[in-house]
Amino acid sequence: MGKRIGKQSIKLDSKPKIISAYSVVGPKEGEGPLSEYFDLILKDDLNGQKSYEKAESSILYKAITECIKKAKIQETDINYLLAGDLLNQISSSNFAARDLDIPFIGLYGACSTMTESLSLGAMIMEAGFANYLLAATSSHFSSAERQFRYPLEYGSQRHPTAHWTVTGAGAMILGKTGNYPYISYVTTGKVKDYGITDVNNMGASMAPAAIDTIKQHFQDTGRGPDDYDLIATGDLGKYGKDITSKLLKEYGYDIEEKYIDCGDEIYGSSQETNAGGSGCGCSAVVDCGYIYKNMLSGKLKRVLILSTGALLSTTSSLQGETIPGIAHAVAIEYGG
Amino acid sequence: MGKRIGKQSIKLDSKPKIISAYSVVGPKEGEGPLSEYFDLILKDDLNGQKSYEKAESSILYKAITECIKKAKIQETDINYLLAGDLLNQISSSNFAARDLDIPFIGLYGACSTMTESLSLGAMIMEAGFANYLLAATSSHFSSAERQFRYPLEYGSQRHPTAHWTVTGAGAMILGKTGNYPYISYVTTGKVKDYGITDVNNMGASMAPAAIDTIKQHFQDTGRGPDDYDLIATGDLGKYGKDITSKLLKEYGYDIEEKYIDCGDEIYGSSQETNAGGSGCGCSAVVDCGYIYKNMLSGKLKRVLILSTGALLSTTSSLQGETIPGIAHAVAIEYGG
Repeated sequence: MGKRIGKQSIKLDSKPKIISAYSVVGPKEGEGPLSEYFDLILKDDLNGQKSYEKAESSILYKAITECIKKAKIQETDINYLLAGDLLNQISSSNFAARDLDIPFIGLYGACSTMTESLSLGAMIMEAGFANYLLAATSSHFSSAERQFRYPLEYGSQRHPTAHWTVTGAGAMILGKTGNYPYISYVTTGKVKDYGITDVNNMGASMAPAAIDTIKQHFQDTGRGPDDYDLIATGDLGKYGKDITSKLLKEYGYDIEEKYIDCGDEIYGSSQETNAGGSGCGCSAVVDCGYIYKNMLSGKLKRVLILSTGALLSTTSSLQGETIPGIAHAVAIEYGG
Repeated sequence: MGKRIGKQSIKLDSKPKIISAYSVVGPKEGEGPLSEYFDLILKDDLNGQKSYEKAESSILYKAITECIKKAKIQETDINYLLAGDLLNQISSSNFAARDLDIPFIGLYGACSTMTESLSLGAMIMEAGFANYLLAATSSHFSSAERQFRYPLEYGSQRHPTAHWTVTGAGAMILGKTGNYPYISYVTTGKVKDYGITDVNNMGASMAPAAIDTIKQHFQDTGRGPDDYDLIATGDLGKYGKDITSKLLKEYGYDIEEKYIDCGDEIYGSSQETNAGGSGCGCSAVVDCGYIYKNMLSGKLKRVLILSTGALLSTTSSLQGETIPGIAHAVAIEYGG
């Protein structure tokens, strides 16, 4: 039976195991410094589809089905698929789910979806309602650009603090047994809004949520930066990462030596991605690729991952609204 | 500890109680046949806001905060808010959550959101991770019209099988104890797509999902139409309801005498809403108003509610995609 810990956290006594993880990335991400950790690097970011939206859905489907194969189970063994994405009405996830014979729970948490789906998945496992379940998400540079910003054909100049949406999809399967990295704690975030209105500075808009959830996780669990080998936020990018690190120090938590941001890691400095990567796929592929594989190999024993979401829409921004953010934290442990 | 029942269902041994429910509707819904069951009928569908999107978010916030008051608990007693809506990036829910001091889990299930949020809420309660949690959703005629169809100012002619999006929001609080209607079973739906492309016939696009989930619920639980006083689908409208009733008969389940559709009930025949109501708010306000109050008064003892979602986006339809549907079933019982 599950336990609440502090104000926003839970402890998973059943230790849901991440029995399989799979990551698919686009060509640009495949040229970045983490390329060796991804399971599949696409040669063509359309993935043989007729539109970028269909391409995004197809790479999510690919990540899900390959993750199932890797776990050596059948699609029908999976009791729930928890997935979401950035597209209006999460169409990538809906259309991927249409081709799968799995009960589907659609989520929207913007770029926080990977840890949102893992958090809910861990709770469902703890309740005993699933033997296996799948948590997944995706994003695509070109479908995001034209939905949130400008048609690609305009060739708009990019702001120095702007992010580059990751083309990629990640999937993880949770199971009950076996010797795998497992989820020990979940801290569910609140929506935080510090009044940022600049849609070209997502890092600043999401940083308050990341800071709040990390701080709350430490307070609830009694843990601190020393208890983790790695703390990885989702897609704050270099500017948001800097804010997070500095402000947490003011709160008495020096995470600097343990801290990476997936958006800051995924591209090399010569790839001209300004603040770094973003999108639901950003933390998904870094978590499913780099982090999961480094846990399996024993290099990382205790990790805190936080996908981070900017909860704006084009309509809310056009109507003068500020940009709220959210971050959900999942602690994963293995060995040690 | 929770039990899986059959292929897609679960039994809630902890019987999560619906300790409070609240419904807000717009003026048009307040003139309909169910008006006496709604907690608040707005005089102005802008609710004092500057845009229809802000209005929708404000009525969701109203439903949530009034539901908390009705339960005689504090906002900070609520461990999770599970909410979603139809707007791009679920902006109504995100902005309502911003003003609440509650950990937030964003969902997208189109008009299936009320039973999606209740389903997940019930699982989290069963896991022991919440003392109280809140499931909520909203829709607004005018924000939906301009996002999914045409600017209102065009005065477009409406198709005979078109729906009228309900302006309304519903919220339910789940708790552990007390003498209240409780959730006994949940059946989580799969995405079903029978090739409908007509965006003016949502009932037909969602009916296969409703049929599949009802049939699966009966198979999994061993129950049948006679075990329920009422079976209520979300927003299939009169045409989708007809398809559902007829096809279930072919599968050997005659639900006709127990069966209502919330979209078919919410407006009177003189209100010119064609197929009937739709939108996340449709099943939400009928479930939180009409059904919950009739359970409390003892008129209904065992009810199966299924909110139903059409998982299209304007982009997917413009790209020639068909319209997938989904339906999640929640069995609620009280007394008797």
